[in-house]
Amino acid sequence: MEYLDMSREQLLAEQSTLKAQYDSYCGEGLNLNMARGKPCAAQEQLSLGILDALPSSADLSNEGNVDLLNYGCLEGLKEAREFYADILGISADKIFVCGNSSLTLMFDYVMQCYAKGVSEEAEPWCKQGDIKFLCPAPGYDRHFGILEFLGIEMITVPMTETGPDMDVVEELAKDPLVKGMFCVPKYSNPTGVTYSDETVRRIAAMETAPDFRVIWDNAYCIHDITEPGDELLEFLGACEEAGHPERGIEVASTSKVSLPGGGISVLAANEPNYSWIRKRLQKQTVGPDKLNQLRHIRYFKDKAGVLAHMKKQAEIIKPHFDVVLDAFEADLKPAGVARWTNPNGGYFISLDVLDGCAQRTWELCKNAGVTLTDCGATFPYGKDPKDSNIRIAPTYPTLEDLAKATEVLICSVKLACLEKLLAE
Amino acid sequence: MEYLDMSREQLLAEQSTLKAQYDSYCGEGLNLNMARGKPCAAQEQLSLGILDALPSSADLSNEGNVDLLNYGCLEGLKEAREFYADILGISADKIFVCGNSSLTLMFDYVMQCYAKGVSEEAEPWCKQGDIKFLCPAPGYDRHFGILEFLGIEMITVPMTETGPDMDVVEELAKDPLVKGMFCVPKYSNPTGVTYSDETVRRIAAMETAPDFRVIWDNAYCIHDITEPGDELLEFLGACEEAGHPERGIEVASTSKVSLPGGGISVLAANEPNYSWIRKRLQKQTVGPDKLNQLRHIRYFKDKAGVLAHMKKQAEIIKPHFDVVLDAFEADLKPAGVARWTNPNGGYFISLDVLDGCAQRTWELCKNAGVTLTDCGATFPYGKDPKDSNIRIAPTYPTLEDLAKATEVLICSVKLACLEKLLAE
Repeated sequence: MEYLDMSREQLLAEQSTLKAQYDSYCGEGLNLNMARGKPCAAQEQLSLGILDALPSSADLSNEGNVDLLNYGCLEGLKEAREFYADILGISADKIFVCGNSSLTLMFDYVMQCYAKGVSEEAEPWCKQGDIKFLCPAPGYDRHFGILEFLGIEMITVPMTETGPDMDVVEELAKDPLVKGMFCVPKYSNPTGVTYSDETVRRIAAMETAPDFRVIWDNAYCIHDITEPGDELLEFLGACEEAGHPERGIEVASTSKVSLPGGGISVLAANEPNYSWIRKRLQKQTVGPDKLNQLRHIRYFKDKAGVLAHMKKQAEIIKPHFDVVLDAFEADLKPAGVARWTNPNGGYFISLDVLDGCAQRTWELCKNAGVTLTDCGATFPYGKDPKDSNIRIAPTYPTLEDLAKATEVLICSVKLACLEKLLAE
Repeated sequence: MEYLDMSREQLLAEQSTLKAQYDSYCGEGLNLNMARGKPCAAQEQLSLGILDALPSSADLSNEGNVDLLNYGCLEGLKEAREFYADILGISADKIFVCGNSSLTLMFDYVMQCYAKGVSEEAEPWCKQGDIKFLCPAPGYDRHFGILEFLGIEMITVPMTETGPDMDVVEELAKDPLVKGMFCVPKYSNPTGVTYSDETVRRIAAMETAPDFRVIWDNAYCIHDITEPGDELLEFLGACEEAGHPERGIEVASTSKVSLPGGGISVLAANEPNYSWIRKRLQKQTVGPDKLNQLRHIRYFKDKAGVLAHMKKQAEIIKPHFDVVLDAFEADLKPAGVARWTNPNGGYFISLDVLDGCAQRTWELCKNAGVTLTDCGATFPYGKDPKDSNIRIAPTYPTLEDLAKATEVLICSVKLACLEKLLAE
């Protein structure tokens, strides 16, 4: 029977049973973590061969005849640009292949617009008063972190099954002080939603300030866990078609493809953004680590090679998702106090509990030795207006730890919701 | 006989001889380059073994028990921080070890101060009106490039044998709109000068605005070509001693130690700068490429190891300097129209010709197929006020090419100066 259909006596009885179960978890001295969207040890091992892909005996010849051992090659190695062009469906001349972190590419781009403007002629954002960004939420805390660091006001936009609520976005974007929006368009962090073609086209076409920019964080572009995975409409082309070629700045990386922290990242943009970013990079760097770029190309070879690799990754990850989702289905669903996502890819399950119960669930888990992502982390300023969302990162723990942590989580969700229902 | 002592007839005779020589150079179809401060092929080969230093079979255990294959470790690998602590004579807790380019560390730091201020509480530089930087010159064009990109006014300060002219610096630094200074304190680019202890102490102690910062680009900290090399007073300690711990931001890299573009970089700062930079890095990156850091540590082991490596580098580079300097001594000195530096390390020889003759020398070289660094590149805004300085980068060409290029250069200097003297 669902909790909402239970009598007070039935709720109290359920609470008593769960309390006993919870106390027993607390006695186990657990130390489990479902907070980190990180590849697990088996995924790391799968990519370890990359360390052998470029020994000193390797032939270092390359398409651009670049001396890989010296400075230069600002846009990145030709092979690496073509590799990502193929993956993203964008021509290679729109692509920079850079260092190990796409977060850096986003931070630096927003910083450039903030301090210098979206073009050489544009007024810097920092000189335009109280500018704002649209933040589909629940979303990625590190996007919010960039905006918070620069003091850019964040406006929460609700997420739907097809991406951000576009009626809301279109209305808000008309404000000339609204300068941009962060998107994770495929397997959105944390809801797992992939934006529909209509959503992508509406974002590309809507009315905005001329210096409005969409940071298109395509972090999970090849991170399917089902077959087939979701399809995402190519954004830079959609922007061109809509007559706003300048709107999109796309990034991605191999952080969750090869080795996190040891990978390569990519930034793609139409003109005139590409040239303006290049002007900044000319002042900012002596060029990327081309050796690590070639190391990746030699290891993955091409798009087919990396997709085959990602299929093996999925074989490792999928069971992690299943452990959580199967337990939710069996043990959480009957209570009727939560719903959750079942994504076709990405790194997260997004769990929504009864309003006002997320923080209490987090505390109950913490007390029992299970760490969840901080409540509110998926919302601007770390504040979940409904106190209902919990981001679950199932990839990093072992399957055994994950099963136990999920048990504790389910028990905690139920207890938190029971507390609420009994207090009403 | 020196040109200044020659009669008009003697000058014309000399010109005629040199013109014939110059025409013969022009007929040789040369394509030589002395513009690039880049390691040569032999230097690259010396470091190539680094590619084998971290195979997949390597033991990845490390002092900080960091999972090198995953995210994190914002400050850099403990071993790498200690390695640079030892090299720079600074405690490891003041050190970040970062990505492949110290230029990026400087750009990003100046950008942080510009957009956000030198501390969380400080007024951003961009909100303080027409701020300025002091630029000892001749200096490093990429420093000037950062300032020019941000529209920060550059004030040229003359270089002396002991560093920037400190009487001038101390006077200018009192202006509250003067926010900083770029320095290459050891084997200064391009003069090769190492700042005297007195200069270092005066920079640390002088009266400045509270948000004045010195970017201490210690690019050539272990790049001696003589024995013994120059000694530089440690700057962060000098700042602390002078009661201005916040003044110095030091950077260095292995770009000219291991492989340019494939190396690691370091930023060192006292509190409160360290914490403020860390706050930015937390928003900007998922952590550095720790694998490349360990690769470097495994290859060089420690300070003694890297110094032994730099000695081998010097054995390769020194003959390049000698080819130029010996030819200058034998063939340029007698004319009495130029002087040049004879540095104990670094990557450049700085040549000063008669005022007004540098650009003409550059053109004559260019016409004969010898590329020099653009005239003025070593001065703010690319303008050498006396049109007298030429930066020579002897490391990259082969010894044979270098000998020929130097011949052409000497002939061009003489012709340019003769033109001037005959026009007077």
